[in-house]
Amino acid sequence: MTRFVVSVHIVPRQGLLDPQGKAVADSLRTLGFAGVRDVHVGRHVVLELDAADAASAERAVREMCSHLLANPVTEDFELAGVRPA
Amino acid sequence: MTRFVVSVHIVPRQGLLDPQGKAVADSLRTLGFAGVRDVHVGRHVVLELDAADAASAERAVREMCSHLLANPVTEDFELAGVRPA
Repeated sequence: MTRFVVSVHIVPRQGLLDPQGKAVADSLRTLGFAGVRDVHVGRHVVLELDAADAASAERAVREMCSHLLANPVTEDFELAGVRPA
Repeated sequence: MTRFVVSVHIVPRQGLLDPQGKAVADSLRTLGFAGVRDVHVGRHVVLELDAADAASAERAVREMCSHLLANPVTEDFELAGVRPA
């Protein structure tokens, strides 16, 4: 078993309403950042886990995303990186 | 002016309590993912903005993080990428 660090981005599905992103964009413009066009707010999850190899660590994290971490109706996820701890 | 897409990771500061990460780790182990050792949950913010060049886009986003996006007491942020839209 090796320890791996896997990072995941979970983002609101493209085209769905993202009220948190809209609120942040409006606030930034109010603060004077006039160049801001659009903001999307998702989650950045970093998992440390023991697995036989990088491929099985990645497979386990994909399963975790489908089962618990991401909302399958409203969110998409992508693995941003898998590296040994 | 060029449009840039800048992504930022905002994470709980190392060593501070991360109750959301702990809750996720416990839930994953309860679901049968026994290999999970530690989980940290932060935010993944993607900003689209107009700026003169990549360097000023990056500078603007760092300022946004210090002023609004990240909590200066409990969170750290890092720019994960700057690319033309």
